[in-house]
Amino acid sequence: MPHWTALVAEKKQRQLKSIPQEWLVTPPPPSTLDVTGFPESCGLLNAREIEITNTSVDVLLKRLASAEWTAVDVTTAFSKRAIVAHQLVNCLTEIFIDPALARAAELDDYLKKTGKVVGPLHGLPISLKDQLCIKGLETTMGYVSWIGQYAEKNAVLVDVLIECGAVPFVRTNIPQTLMWPESFNSVFGRTTNPHNVSLTSGGSSGGEGALIALKGSPLGVGSDIGGSVRIPSAFCGIYGLRPSYGRVPYCGARNSLEGQDSILSVFGPMTNSLSGLKVFMKAVVNSKPWLKDPLAVRKKWDEDEYELADHGSGKDLCFAIMWDDGVVVPHPPIRRSLEITKAALQKAGHKVVDWKPIKHKLLGEVTRDIWNAGSAEDYMITTSVTGEPIIATMELDHADTTAASFRPQNGGITAYQLWQVQKLRQNIRKEYMDHWNATASETGTGRAVDAIICPAAPYAAPPHGKNRYTNYTTVWNALDYPATIFPVTTVDPTLDARDEKDPPHRFYDQFDQDVYEMYDPEKFKNAPVCLQLVGRTLEEEAVIKMTEIVDAALAAAK
Amino acid sequence: MPHWTALVAEKKQRQLKSIPQEWLVTPPPPSTLDVTGFPESCGLLNAREIEITNTSVDVLLKRLASAEWTAVDVTTAFSKRAIVAHQLVNCLTEIFIDPALARAAELDDYLKKTGKVVGPLHGLPISLKDQLCIKGLETTMGYVSWIGQYAEKNAVLVDVLIECGAVPFVRTNIPQTLMWPESFNSVFGRTTNPHNVSLTSGGSSGGEGALIALKGSPLGVGSDIGGSVRIPSAFCGIYGLRPSYGRVPYCGARNSLEGQDSILSVFGPMTNSLSGLKVFMKAVVNSKPWLKDPLAVRKKWDEDEYELADHGSGKDLCFAIMWDDGVVVPHPPIRRSLEITKAALQKAGHKVVDWKPIKHKLLGEVTRDIWNAGSAEDYMITTSVTGEPIIATMELDHADTTAASFRPQNGGITAYQLWQVQKLRQNIRKEYMDHWNATASETGTGRAVDAIICPAAPYAAPPHGKNRYTNYTTVWNALDYPATIFPVTTVDPTLDARDEKDPPHRFYDQFDQDVYEMYDPEKFKNAPVCLQLVGRTLEEEAVIKMTEIVDAALAAAK
Repeated sequence: MPHWTALVAEKKQRQLKSIPQEWLVTPPPPSTLDVTGFPESCGLLNAREIEITNTSVDVLLKRLASAEWTAVDVTTAFSKRAIVAHQLVNCLTEIFIDPALARAAELDDYLKKTGKVVGPLHGLPISLKDQLCIKGLETTMGYVSWIGQYAEKNAVLVDVLIECGAVPFVRTNIPQTLMWPESFNSVFGRTTNPHNVSLTSGGSSGGEGALIALKGSPLGVGSDIGGSVRIPSAFCGIYGLRPSYGRVPYCGARNSLEGQDSILSVFGPMTNSLSGLKVFMKAVVNSKPWLKDPLAVRKKWDEDEYELADHGSGKDLCFAIMWDDGVVVPHPPIRRSLEITKAALQKAGHKVVDWKPIKHKLLGEVTRDIWNAGSAEDYMITTSVTGEPIIATMELDHADTTAASFRPQNGGITAYQLWQVQKLRQNIRKEYMDHWNATASETGTGRAVDAIICPAAPYAAPPHGKNRYTNYTTVWNALDYPATIFPVTTVDPTLDARDEKDPPHRFYDQFDQDVYEMYDPEKFKNAPVCLQLVGRTLEEEAVIKMTEIVDAALAAAK
Repeated sequence: MPHWTALVAEKKQRQLKSIPQEWLVTPPPPSTLDVTGFPESCGLLNAREIEITNTSVDVLLKRLASAEWTAVDVTTAFSKRAIVAHQLVNCLTEIFIDPALARAAELDDYLKKTGKVVGPLHGLPISLKDQLCIKGLETTMGYVSWIGQYAEKNAVLVDVLIECGAVPFVRTNIPQTLMWPESFNSVFGRTTNPHNVSLTSGGSSGGEGALIALKGSPLGVGSDIGGSVRIPSAFCGIYGLRPSYGRVPYCGARNSLEGQDSILSVFGPMTNSLSGLKVFMKAVVNSKPWLKDPLAVRKKWDEDEYELADHGSGKDLCFAIMWDDGVVVPHPPIRRSLEITKAALQKAGHKVVDWKPIKHKLLGEVTRDIWNAGSAEDYMITTSVTGEPIIATMELDHADTTAASFRPQNGGITAYQLWQVQKLRQNIRKEYMDHWNATASETGTGRAVDAIICPAAPYAAPPHGKNRYTNYTTVWNALDYPATIFPVTTVDPTLDARDEKDPPHRFYDQFDQDVYEMYDPEKFKNAPVCLQLVGRTLEEEAVIKMTEIVDAALAAAK
């Protein structure tokens, strides 16, 4: 077998060949940190293509259904913009635009002949995280060792999306192992943040985050085991949803830690358009995934739940804001975004109370113990095929391999020991549920708190290698609560000055202080600031609707 | 600490004291194998009490709701019969009739004052497997080491049932560890089969099976991780349901192998009345258990699914009969029950095809590997508190401790190894689902097979210690398919003669032959013969309705 670097070189050559050569552009100079304007100024896209790629998912679907825009036109426009995006932030892995255009042409034919759409996603280009197998393509998931492994069939979700009329056209970048909240691997390299390329796009669905922020895709599929949809959504300033276990089919996709049955990775939508969340979830759930994936939950899309039947029909909601998680206090821009949101919700007539977090630190530890029960062996066995190194830092200079490592510190535990950790986690789940139920006494609505609003991370997108703390998202995975990401503002050095009498609070511990010390408004300049809305297990319908309510309140308050 | 036998003696004294002394009877001589007639002939129950205890669940609930019968009357009648049953087959563990009668009196008061029932189970006595904690009572689960551990609160399901108006009054016997398909432990001893006390009642919910067969309870709750609701239901000749994971709340109950998140134990109803299955499931699901138990699935009771919306409204069903599982061929009475059922269904206008089992042997092995990943440590740590022995045989003479042991043969595996087994199991789940879907091409209904009908075991209730093979139930746990048990016939030495040109088939292997050699119609005389109906994950509504259809077809064909 050739040295692993030779395998990478060969794979990269093939990737380059998969890019239409006439779409290669001269990227802006490295000093240009914010590249979000480049796709529209570079000259590759015509005015109509710019219009198409700036259109929201619901409107795109309407214009596709009415044949105002053809699927070929829409797929071409997003493909061009995706290729430009890739040249800016290195967000793509597999690129398969020709088959996508062929599929788009079929869809156009079908609509022309029958007057009907194929399904609810007719003609919509969809990007996919580099786990979602497509027949005939490799799924390397950033492992050199998996180069050359061609899928014999589609992942169930890919089949579902195609049946719904979607047009997969590119796959997107991730970190090696997926278990890191940034996106760097030895095969495809690093994805950067389009709002400021010196910052991370987040991870593990960082390629999706960056691509969608540049409008190179109207909607993409990420996966989330500890925040991997939400962190890049938040860092890149887009919408995202982490559904509950089993709401979206996972079967037939590649993954890390396979066979780990406890804290599961889930697929969820990432999109520029809030409408994309409902469109995606409704289409996927209505396809009856439980007949295609044994782990998919037999629960129909419930429009009553979307209309907040269990939340007083949405008239008089009570949101709880978690200002910090009792472990790491968020940076000033995050605090400001929470204040903006609180004011907007109150102005819209909703009630806002404070959320008191319980046992978040322990939940984070338990989650890591469950993953690390066998992860060292998983990584070692996977990488040993080619001898590629296990990446231990995502810093630019690869200097700091000790701090904030998302790699296991030991070799694993026994199954019985794993069961004990899993038992502890189930006990905390019950405790947290009781804690939430008990809020019924303080909301004044007769119900418990309708949703929690909280940071997605203690900071906006940090510099590469510095995303050290994922517990603002991970706790909800451990509890299996669905959660969305929605944009609120961007880091503004004037409004978000570092308090020079720092700290403004007493630090919980040294780690908390270290995170605070990292803050420098100039360094984070222009980074999007998003928040998270959290609901109850399998309540995706209500969580999406409440996010729409919050989003509308924010827009109205502006 | 006293020797464990002293702890048992003391516990048994307390159990004896919990029995109303005036309800002690003189049991029939040991030569009486069939004791099912004794409760009505022993003289303890008056005619009305006999009538009450012979009444089906739906009628009981109607008469309770109309105050024709008081909750006190009904609870008294079943309590008396339960105590008689206990003296016949040793089926009870905790006995708490006084608090039950006090609760019944409250319910009567409430109905008298308000004219309303408390809930859908108003006044219905319900027996509970010895895992379901009740505040103030011990939950030993047959472990000497757990004697003296008093529950501080009710299990979630107990709360739900009480809110629904049910009256818990006794708990029922199990095997030590729960992981054995018979019911014997060092604290409470052995439960026998009321149809023939030389046979096992099955397990692990064997106390429930025996109690309900003697009509000492109209409805009970068992648990099922590999057949523990279905095996005793089948051996004792009653109805039972193993729901999918999370349909019935488990939180707050005691269990074996806690923290094992993969192949989960579930609670399900066991009853003399087919109506009891729907009554129980609808009441529990309508209580929104997902707000009380983090693992309970947010899926409402779906009356459309009960009316077989996904199965052509039940007009033209296609059942698949699995005659054997490719591992162990069933005894003649089981074969005959399948033939009876096939003929009855065809007579009722339904289609019947053959079910081809795939990978049942492997599924059984994988399931055992998952449980045994940590079970040796689990049992050892639990029993080490008092030094009670880990029971290794359930034979009467304790002779054969090698054959058919349901104890782990080694000390466990690593978490990573466990993940590999769990991964294999998920792959087989997908394969089995595809296999089921593929039957759409042979049913002629346009749908895949609506339900599978198969044995619950390769035999009717065998002699004590001889229940060696559970895979007819366990595979459906591994696949998470809901399954019911329904009675078909009883072993009849005339109709079920052993074929003297035995075997009638070529044996799969020595084990298959050993199971066949065990058959002797005289030995199994009078044992009930039940079958199993299997549906798709989270399709409890349809599975119950289809069982009602099969039951009606069997009645009509008689």
